[in-house]
Amino acid sequence: MKKIINAPENYTDDMLKGIYAAHPDQVKYVEGDLRCYCTANKKDGKVAIITGGGTGHLPLFLGYVGDGLLDGCGVGGVFQSPSAEQIYNVSKEVEAGAGILYLYGNYTGDIMNFDMAAEMCEMDDIETRSIVGADDVNSNANPDTRRGVAGIFFMYKCAGAKAAEMGTLDEVLAAAQKAKDNTRTVGFALTPCIIPEVGHSNFTLGENEMAMGMGIHGEPGVWNGPIKTADELAEESMKTLLDDMPVKEGEEICVLVNGLGATSIEELYILSGSVRKILDEKGIKTYRTFVGEYATSMEMAGASISICKVDDEMKKWIDMPVKTPFYTQA
Amino acid sequence: MKKIINAPENYTDDMLKGIYAAHPDQVKYVEGDLRCYCTANKKDGKVAIITGGGTGHLPLFLGYVGDGLLDGCGVGGVFQSPSAEQIYNVSKEVEAGAGILYLYGNYTGDIMNFDMAAEMCEMDDIETRSIVGADDVNSNANPDTRRGVAGIFFMYKCAGAKAAEMGTLDEVLAAAQKAKDNTRTVGFALTPCIIPEVGHSNFTLGENEMAMGMGIHGEPGVWNGPIKTADELAEESMKTLLDDMPVKEGEEICVLVNGLGATSIEELYILSGSVRKILDEKGIKTYRTFVGEYATSMEMAGASISICKVDDEMKKWIDMPVKTPFYTQA
Repeated sequence: MKKIINAPENYTDDMLKGIYAAHPDQVKYVEGDLRCYCTANKKDGKVAIITGGGTGHLPLFLGYVGDGLLDGCGVGGVFQSPSAEQIYNVSKEVEAGAGILYLYGNYTGDIMNFDMAAEMCEMDDIETRSIVGADDVNSNANPDTRRGVAGIFFMYKCAGAKAAEMGTLDEVLAAAQKAKDNTRTVGFALTPCIIPEVGHSNFTLGENEMAMGMGIHGEPGVWNGPIKTADELAEESMKTLLDDMPVKEGEEICVLVNGLGATSIEELYILSGSVRKILDEKGIKTYRTFVGEYATSMEMAGASISICKVDDEMKKWIDMPVKTPFYTQA
Repeated sequence: MKKIINAPENYTDDMLKGIYAAHPDQVKYVEGDLRCYCTANKKDGKVAIITGGGTGHLPLFLGYVGDGLLDGCGVGGVFQSPSAEQIYNVSKEVEAGAGILYLYGNYTGDIMNFDMAAEMCEMDDIETRSIVGADDVNSNANPDTRRGVAGIFFMYKCAGAKAAEMGTLDEVLAAAQKAKDNTRTVGFALTPCIIPEVGHSNFTLGENEMAMGMGIHGEPGVWNGPIKTADELAEESMKTLLDDMPVKEGEEICVLVNGLGATSIEELYILSGSVRKILDEKGIKTYRTFVGEYATSMEMAGASISICKVDDEMKKWIDMPVKTPFYTQA
């Protein structure tokens, strides 16, 4: 296991200590619990948006807490859900009089704990709404049971912008829903990653083998086979995406090419170029392209491609400036 | 070779096509040569800063071309220098009436080609100055012959800020020199990386082996041995850094913890936390901490730690907002 760590069991907390030490002007924790991650710049009267999920996906999830995006995050251990109490403690801290939107990935443990936290908030007369990201097309034919992956970025961006505009709780929820309805993702892995406390990967991929559709926790995909070229991967991915969510000639989309961890930025741009050629051929307009690490799986090699169909309102939300310790748009 | 690419020989150009397609509002190329990478937002009367170097280190080098930083970049093949003609073509495009600073890493091929480009500029009555980054302490006992690595970020940031303030050519050079004099880096690798056209790595590291002081092209380091903990790596690195450039109690530094490619952001923050503990114990003040991928070696696992001693003037330069397709500070 080639990792720069101390004791594997301290992976999450050592990471959090490093983050708080580096960015005390932007984030803090409450209740003496490092995993109750909150903005240090709460804004009165604004809808609070809270996310959460397991460690191992930086900048997901906590990396999107900051100006113009989210207000808090419940931080779980590696690939584990935060507890309901942690989410509740974050909720009490960042709620600013306009209610809370819980916006997180579609995973069983997270749903259970966010729902419990919502009940605890209700007893305190704090209003909440919930929505889950479920953009991973290959994870299930039924859109409601799909896993949430990198496409949640567009939900964060649109909901965060609407909240920054001082929208109501239901307006912020509607912005997240609109982004969700218009976003789809396909991902593929070239290598597994290792959970620090396990010390070895739970599966292997052969020397020239990849896994199309693999999840960000190593969930099985739709096929394993020889590594394809960037052009071939873009072709297959775009077909899957556009079959699931048709985009007409002349319509506009944003593209997010996301690295899973070990894949170089150079390769992500090669892949992004392959995607762009296909879109240009189809006459689909690319409004904006995001390339980089937005949702990772520690040191997994691989990438995902997300598309988000946009109208004028969504373009405005997506372009709004944001600033977190991990992601800045100006 | 687990890479998302098309033909290996097109690695650099496919990457560049992806970048130009994604960010046409910010960058362009000239003379029909993808490798002549220029800002799309030239500012009249400003000193132009040009960098250059081999592909394989994104966001280094071209990723720092943008508002508040650099104006152009000569792009070489993987781990190769750009040609003198390419640097000259970039120079002609971005020169804006106040001369050019060449600011790049201390590598023989780059020096030769930048010097030739400077001579070509001289014949056009374009004034140039040159300075090289040489921050890698373990690469040589003699500071003048050290390799340039991630610490060049602070040179870019200070020179870029001085140029944005409309400083003269010699003032911009002085800002870069000041950053250089106050910056040191130590790096270490856990795995090698593979040059696409070679198809296999030029060396191997054992299952539990690392290389302290390895260069970003795989140049040999000062020792190979079992992987140390984050705390131990921080301890050894900070000793090397502070022995070479003493920092007194109460003095202020910026810290840059840089990932070489495959190392997760989680690990970089664990390492950053280890560095911070040492600085706090010594009473050295941390003005600002940067954590992420600033200078990589494709899919190499490993990290580097840079420190930059700062005064009020440098703090102002380092805090100035910048915006490139790869790096934004607001």
